[in-house]
Amino acid sequence: MSGFRHVVLYRWAEGTTIGQQEEVAARLREVAGTIPEVRGFSAGLDAGVSPGAYEFVVVADFAGKDGYLAYRDHPAHRAVVEEFIAPIAAERAAIQYET
Amino acid sequence: MSGFRHVVLYRWAEGTTIGQQEEVAARLREVAGTIPEVRGFSAGLDAGVSPGAYEFVVVADFAGKDGYLAYRDHPAHRAVVEEFIAPIAAERAAIQYET
Repeated sequence: MSGFRHVVLYRWAEGTTIGQQEEVAARLREVAGTIPEVRGFSAGLDAGVSPGAYEFVVVADFAGKDGYLAYRDHPAHRAVVEEFIAPIAAERAAIQYET
Repeated sequence: MSGFRHVVLYRWAEGTTIGQQEEVAARLREVAGTIPEVRGFSAGLDAGVSPGAYEFVVVADFAGKDGYLAYRDHPAHRAVVEEFIAPIAAERAAIQYET
């Protein structure tokens, strides 16, 4: 089934705890579950296999670009970004692509 | 179904063509199709929605970490990395996580 995928990786500010990262993952999962345009969603912490890896990842699937934009701009999503992600984000790598 | 996911984003050297990127995607898909540990695979070029986005992404799914390591170290995969990716890669952002 073709679709549109959003991928974002984060590195966090020094001193960011596992608990804070798990809070981000939980909040994002909660928000994703309330946005009907989100067709698939996963968020997780780095498994520790590769030196130099980023620390946190979100992969979200949509039927198309419009679904992604609805998620990106949804007030509940923006609130999580502003309250939980922005204060600890140090580096961000993102891409969207057709699947 | 729980599993293990590998995500990697690239920025390419200046002057890298769409054709070169599509060649990388095609070679990686071909290799992924021959490695039984690969449970899911997609590779694609940035859709152009977000300024500052990376240019290329690979998302590969496995049953567990060992499946990922088999893919990572597979000679056919290493050959694509060395012949098609390394010569044009400028920046790489990667993570592995449990799904």
